[in-house]
Amino acid sequence: MGATIIDSRIFGNIFSTDAMRHVWSDENRTAKYVEIERALAIVQGRLGIIPAEAADEIVRNCDMSRIDMDKLRVQTERIGYPILGVVSQLNALCRDKLGEYCHWGATTQDITDTATVMQIREGLGLVDADLGAISDALAALARRYRDTPIIGRSNLQQAIPVTFGYKMATILAAVERHRERLAQLRPRVLVGEFGGACGTLASIERGAMETQAGLMAELGLGQPLIAWHTVRDCIAEVGCFLGLLGGTLGKLSMDVKLMMQTEVGEVYEPFAHGRGSSSTMPQKRNPISSCYIHAAISVVRQHAAALLDAMVADHERSTGPWEIEWIVLPEAFCLMAGALKQSRFVLEGLEVDAQAMRRNIDLTHGLVMSEAVMMGLGPHIGREFAHDLVYDICREAVKQQRPLLDLLAEHPQINKHLDRPALATLCDPANYLGQSGVMVDRVLAQLAP
Amino acid sequence: MGATIIDSRIFGNIFSTDAMRHVWSDENRTAKYVEIERALAIVQGRLGIIPAEAADEIVRNCDMSRIDMDKLRVQTERIGYPILGVVSQLNALCRDKLGEYCHWGATTQDITDTATVMQIREGLGLVDADLGAISDALAALARRYRDTPIIGRSNLQQAIPVTFGYKMATILAAVERHRERLAQLRPRVLVGEFGGACGTLASIERGAMETQAGLMAELGLGQPLIAWHTVRDCIAEVGCFLGLLGGTLGKLSMDVKLMMQTEVGEVYEPFAHGRGSSSTMPQKRNPISSCYIHAAISVVRQHAAALLDAMVADHERSTGPWEIEWIVLPEAFCLMAGALKQSRFVLEGLEVDAQAMRRNIDLTHGLVMSEAVMMGLGPHIGREFAHDLVYDICREAVKQQRPLLDLLAEHPQINKHLDRPALATLCDPANYLGQSGVMVDRVLAQLAP
Amino acid sequence: MGATIIDSRIFGNIFSTDAMRHVWSDENRTAKYVEIERALAIVQGRLGIIPAEAADEIVRNCDMSRIDMDKLRVQTERIGYPILGVVSQLNALCRDKLGEYCHWGATTQDITDTATVMQIREGLGLVDADLGAISDALAALARRYRDTPIIGRSNLQQAIPVTFGYKMATILAAVERHRERLAQLRPRVLVGEFGGACGTLASIERGAMETQAGLMAELGLGQPLIAWHTVRDCIAEVGCFLGLLGGTLGKLSMDVKLMMQTEVGEVYEPFAHGRGSSSTMPQKRNPISSCYIHAAISVVRQHAAALLDAMVADHERSTGPWEIEWIVLPEAFCLMAGALKQSRFVLEGLEVDAQAMRRNIDLTHGLVMSEAVMMGLGPHIGREFAHDLVYDICREAVKQQRPLLDLLAEHPQINKHLDRPALATLCDPANYLGQSGVMVDRVLAQLAP
Amino acid sequence: MGATIIDSRIFGNIFSTDAMRHVWSDENRTAKYVEIERALAIVQGRLGIIPAEAADEIVRNCDMSRIDMDKLRVQTERIGYPILGVVSQLNALCRDKLGEYCHWGATTQDITDTATVMQIREGLGLVDADLGAISDALAALARRYRDTPIIGRSNLQQAIPVTFGYKMATILAAVERHRERLAQLRPRVLVGEFGGACGTLASIERGAMETQAGLMAELGLGQPLIAWHTVRDCIAEVGCFLGLLGGTLGKLSMDVKLMMQTEVGEVYEPFAHGRGSSSTMPQKRNPISSCYIHAAISVVRQHAAALLDAMVADHERSTGPWEIEWIVLPEAFCLMAGALKQSRFVLEGLEVDAQAMRRNIDLTHGLVMSEAVMMGLGPHIGREFAHDLVYDICREAVKQQRPLLDLLAEHPQINKHLDRPALATLCDPANYLGQSGVMVDRVLAQLAP
Repeated sequence: MGATIIDSRIFGNIFSTDAMRHVWSDENRTAKYVEIERALAIVQGRLGIIPAEAADEIVRNCDMSRIDMDKLRVQTERIGYPILGVVSQLNALCRDKLGEYCHWGATTQDITDTATVMQIREGLGLVDADLGAISDALAALARRYRDTPIIGRSNLQQAIPVTFGYKMATILAAVERHRERLAQLRPRVLVGEFGGACGTLASIERGAMETQAGLMAELGLGQPLIAWHTVRDCIAEVGCFLGLLGGTLGKLSMDVKLMMQTEVGEVYEPFAHGRGSSSTMPQKRNPISSCYIHAAISVVRQHAAALLDAMVADHERSTGPWEIEWIVLPEAFCLMAGALKQSRFVLEGLEVDAQAMRRNIDLTHGLVMSEAVMMGLGPHIGREFAHDLVYDICREAVKQQRPLLDLLAEHPQINKHLDRPALATLCDPANYLGQSGVMVDRVLAQLAP
Repeated sequence: MGATIIDSRIFGNIFSTDAMRHVWSDENRTAKYVEIERALAIVQGRLGIIPAEAADEIVRNCDMSRIDMDKLRVQTERIGYPILGVVSQLNALCRDKLGEYCHWGATTQDITDTATVMQIREGLGLVDADLGAISDALAALARRYRDTPIIGRSNLQQAIPVTFGYKMATILAAVERHRERLAQLRPRVLVGEFGGACGTLASIERGAMETQAGLMAELGLGQPLIAWHTVRDCIAEVGCFLGLLGGTLGKLSMDVKLMMQTEVGEVYEPFAHGRGSSSTMPQKRNPISSCYIHAAISVVRQHAAALLDAMVADHERSTGPWEIEWIVLPEAFCLMAGALKQSRFVLEGLEVDAQAMRRNIDLTHGLVMSEAVMMGLGPHIGREFAHDLVYDICREAVKQQRPLLDLLAEHPQINKHLDRPALATLCDPANYLGQSGVMVDRVLAQLAP
Repeated sequence: MGATIIDSRIFGNIFSTDAMRHVWSDENRTAKYVEIERALAIVQGRLGIIPAEAADEIVRNCDMSRIDMDKLRVQTERIGYPILGVVSQLNALCRDKLGEYCHWGATTQDITDTATVMQIREGLGLVDADLGAISDALAALARRYRDTPIIGRSNLQQAIPVTFGYKMATILAAVERHRERLAQLRPRVLVGEFGGACGTLASIERGAMETQAGLMAELGLGQPLIAWHTVRDCIAEVGCFLGLLGGTLGKLSMDVKLMMQTEVGEVYEPFAHGRGSSSTMPQKRNPISSCYIHAAISVVRQHAAALLDAMVADHERSTGPWEIEWIVLPEAFCLMAGALKQSRFVLEGLEVDAQAMRRNIDLTHGLVMSEAVMMGLGPHIGREFAHDLVYDICREAVKQQRPLLDLLAEHPQINKHLDRPALATLCDPANYLGQSGVMVDRVLAQLAP
Repeated sequence: MGATIIDSRIFGNIFSTDAMRHVWSDENRTAKYVEIERALAIVQGRLGIIPAEAADEIVRNCDMSRIDMDKLRVQTERIGYPILGVVSQLNALCRDKLGEYCHWGATTQDITDTATVMQIREGLGLVDADLGAISDALAALARRYRDTPIIGRSNLQQAIPVTFGYKMATILAAVERHRERLAQLRPRVLVGEFGGACGTLASIERGAMETQAGLMAELGLGQPLIAWHTVRDCIAEVGCFLGLLGGTLGKLSMDVKLMMQTEVGEVYEPFAHGRGSSSTMPQKRNPISSCYIHAAISVVRQHAAALLDAMVADHERSTGPWEIEWIVLPEAFCLMAGALKQSRFVLEGLEVDAQAMRRNIDLTHGLVMSEAVMMGLGPHIGREFAHDLVYDICREAVKQQRPLLDLLAEHPQINKHLDRPALATLCDPANYLGQSGVMVDRVLAQLAP
């Protein structure tokens, strides 16, 4: 039916993606269960823990297409968890009761957790790909607009000029840090679970650790040092990572929204006919992707808190906290997939209006150059005095609505040190971009080749 | 596909309900749009704001079954919002361009917000019904076990006896307060929106306020004092209400979980074959509903925070915050529907083991009666002295593993004041239930007839 | 030392107020303990539950100035809770061991909870006073600028004109709803606690309910229907209320921040020399109060979630959740006091630049009147066609940088229906304010006299 | 006055520590400002950016003891930020206006952020030391109780035996992961800020990057690739780290609370006279440290969400989000210091009752060995059949209140495969500890030497 926005037929592709929804779908999750049971049979057959004949028969029947999902729903509603249902269906498919060797020594949560880690691996893969594309798009913008002046804004007040490339590079630096975080957390997080009822593998008389090692090798996951059924820092870490990533996309979307304001008009989300239009206000160009990004990441940060909450698990198998992950983890990934998609869309097609940027710099008749002037005057008349003087002249310029340069050139305590051309140079934004370009280069130089 | 647990084919009926999913489904939401456009046409036709002929034609075509949902998806993905798509489809259904009078003077958010309020009305209706049933079940338990002793626990330590009915009545009192809250918030929240682009109804030359009043009357909603497109306290209030309700269900599930512990065994969730069983530990009786309740309400409290976040809207139509509601509101309702359903299930079929309750009271050989003893001795030997003395004797009883009564009866500073029978009376739990019954009666007396 | 921003000597008065800090101070909290013990002695003396002589002696010594706070700190660190320390100090002050009748039948949490409710009462009193002042300030702005046009903004795009008074009135309506919420929650929340170890008052042999009733009457609090030591909906409700209130202040501060942008310049926070100035950019006028409001309320909404979490209490006295309230409740009140103070400051001294508002309306050469034009043309050429036509003309006007009026007047499909003067009227913002004034009046009419 | 629990005279040492409070105190923060201004003068003097004489004079006067904190408070309340006040005081201390070279080219946020990073460095140092001690204590427990049976619990139901050392080792493994996370985030996070008004260092005509590099070297911090005034992923990452750490301590405290239950009694927080005692129930042994841990970490996880929120910063210097960090970061560190202290206290003095653990295993007359029995019977009668059979026998054993072993030995389908001694072996917990010891060894082997 689609009660959630993520699974909505109408909104689903705006707030998420098919690829990420697939990762967390009933089908894919159940397929992972089957894949794990299959790998377990292979390994246990190889180790002689279960009969080779049983292993072969189980492997042969571990076929997702043969799982009856409606039956599984009924089984799950009765039992509370789907694993026993899957195992029982696999068992029934096998001849001669050989299926009873399926799921040997495993517990429900072993399969569920390992499947979740495999879904996380797929989900992080999608995230990583988007991060790469976003990094490329930001790098291209940083490179192209390395020297394009835009007013820097502090507390939403025009401050001093920077370059648009610099602005993009500050965000690019964060994206690169996220990629570093992702690389660091992967080996810690992509670790399977196989421990039996309370994690001790008591259910397997011999070859327990070998089974665990073999199963993880088969699935391409790390082997756990010890069971983690109720020690969930790695799952919560994934939530925090998504939350951190969301924060950066939120910053990006905030800037785009602000720059798209009618009164600012410096950049635009890519145009698509009808997109971002209003049913009644045809002149509008709404920052529609930025809206979706903002909303998605605002929810994901609360998901991160929920996943931290899920860590407060009791004893060897938790009573409620675990299920928090079931709700939250798929949503956090799905919403982030939407936010990443929208961010890519914005960045890969961003319309940049360098002229508007320049026009906005000039909006205050030079006031935004006051720091430059203050710094330029400092050596002549003392920094604090220059500060106070320029501060007063600026207020006068605002009051009289006259260019700052004119008032500076008229002031006796200033023009005895610097003549008008020198003051004009101080007032030229292009001369006050500081290390914008150098910093862009520093960030670009660190990119993976 | 069902990437979320709410829309999962496998888990959906565990974590939510069909009825609540229907409320927030694409179909119901779109049906509300159609219903509102219909009501608007009726009212505007009646007021002569649009031609009667147009009104009739629009009303005739406002038929949810004729909306092409696939087309609507495409339109929504292009425009970012579904309303224009619905209006354009309705328009196309009408003859002679009469459909152009559809949506007259309205803006996208008018329709969306009003539809949301109508969905909230339906959602709150379902919540209210469940609250009523939960209240009934709690009242029945409170009444039935009004005088059944159970040990009261403080900091998870056995403290003094209370009754199981008293325990239920404390929660019942909260449920009744929630019903009061619900009654108070309904007239504040169930208010529609109709204001046009920026809420001022500038789009309707004459009859604007009459249209607004008529539309709300037609839909059975309150008329807003002023537009609330970006003033979202009432939506967030619903989120807070659900969060508060969740807190109470969380408390209930916490107690059930703790009382179901193997070492405690005082109550059990209703038995259903296979339910709460483990694939490997046949003896277990898992508090499976309580797990689901715990998880759902833990997420809903984060949803409440997200809805508070959504209040920080900009100007006349917000740029991102509004969409937070789209994500969170349906989920909060759907998860609460699941938590309410599970709570009803638990309460309506709760197995109560009064014998186990009594056995647990006796577990400490009388130590839990120490307060009674202390209070009883106070008048004779001074309260603080009695406190210190009993405190020491209790520690001795623990050390010697002997009944408190024996040690009390042996102690010279005690037995000179009270003989063994008197001390035995002090040590009898049934004599130390205080106002448990009276308080149960107070709560029951306040129930709506 | 002041490690928190709230208790910082440097920042404390920016982020909170002395009055609210006092409410939650060690001194006031301890004074409440003493006041409650005093009231309890009075009532129990009157009822003959404790000797009149003891009651008198206790009352005589219930004097906050005689509590040794350093000793109390040591006692608290040892015991974990301060109540026993206070009682023991009071006891020591009384002659002839009469102090042993102090705290008769009470438990630590009775005193703590009742003190908290008394602090909440004081805290809500301060909040209410600020709400009243904010309401007055908003009402004055709404009244004064009832008809002053400002551009309405949707998705940060200029949409259609509204009035500044209307803008203020939308927020005022929310403030009034908050006052209604406050009035509704007060009787529910301002209820004391007196139940003994597990809430059943078993510790008082006779006159238990009379003591409870008398104590609450003495303290001016409501009598609880039943104990609520672990049923904390009312405390969490206060947190939600503060969170909701914060949402509205957040919306206000968001708008002020946006209107104070250099490129917008429509309103300013009150000027104070040096305030909001930068050490290097003398021309800036920072929305400094708005920053503090934004930050405070962002934290308070997380506090609301934490208080919902604190509801998941176990059994008769919770093991951890209760202490969440100890941390969060004082902070939520203190931060809100700061946010309210800053909001009052902003609203009571807000500088409004009506000329700048008008200048911004004209910024788009009439594009913001497109809806008016569309609506005006609708009756002549059909609404949907008018929409599409005006949409195209607007894009053309942007491209050519020419006034919308000129292009409209030139267009053959338009000028055959409306001449230039008629079109000019359609393009005049003053003619498109809709029900702005009427809605302001509706809100003002609902104000308490 | 101490309105917050952290700065409370009464509660401060329970919920935090002096050392951590000092890190975030007004004094230490201001001392960092002075230290940074001093380092800046040294570097800029060395580079010839400011006169050597000025550098010497500034360095000579950069003395925290000469800062007038009351004056600073007044300056801060006026300006909104304390940096200008500090600089102006330093300036006033210097002779001959040489102090005007102080703060050369810096902006308020440069100093504030760099100070914050230095405070974070100190704070993480304290956290790291506590983590080390906690790791040691857990390792000692894991080693000592490597083979001590305790019942494993799943869904709060007794499941199968594990060892107490295993239980501790699962948490130890998480603590070690946290130390790895800490090591990974330090070089990313411990990076200073020096960029001037908008981060571009435009304020320094020559030697800008050299100043930045030199300043960071002087302070022992990393040099930023580019300014991060509004790109706050590293600050939020610290919040997430503290939240993750909190989750693990929460899990620990949850288990301690549950094991300390009267009905369980397997471990106890260290005894201190009067600690955890109740004013009315002398027999109680409250898990008081666990309560404080639970509460602190529940709040810190919401702080993590707030810090993620603070990432949504606007343009080059944010308007509100930054100040969220001011509120939240000190509190998160202070509360975690309290939680870590309490955790150390619990772990370093934990009383472990191995006999009680064994008694609890026997509580169910062998039912918890059902999995062992099932696994043992599997090879003889088929796993699924064994499962169903044992499941039924267990229910029978519960009903008849008889030992499982008796019923097993009586059952014809079982005793034809295994005799009573063989079944008794299957029922012995010591024979069903699985890889508990091996896994303990795996975790211990990975510890840093």
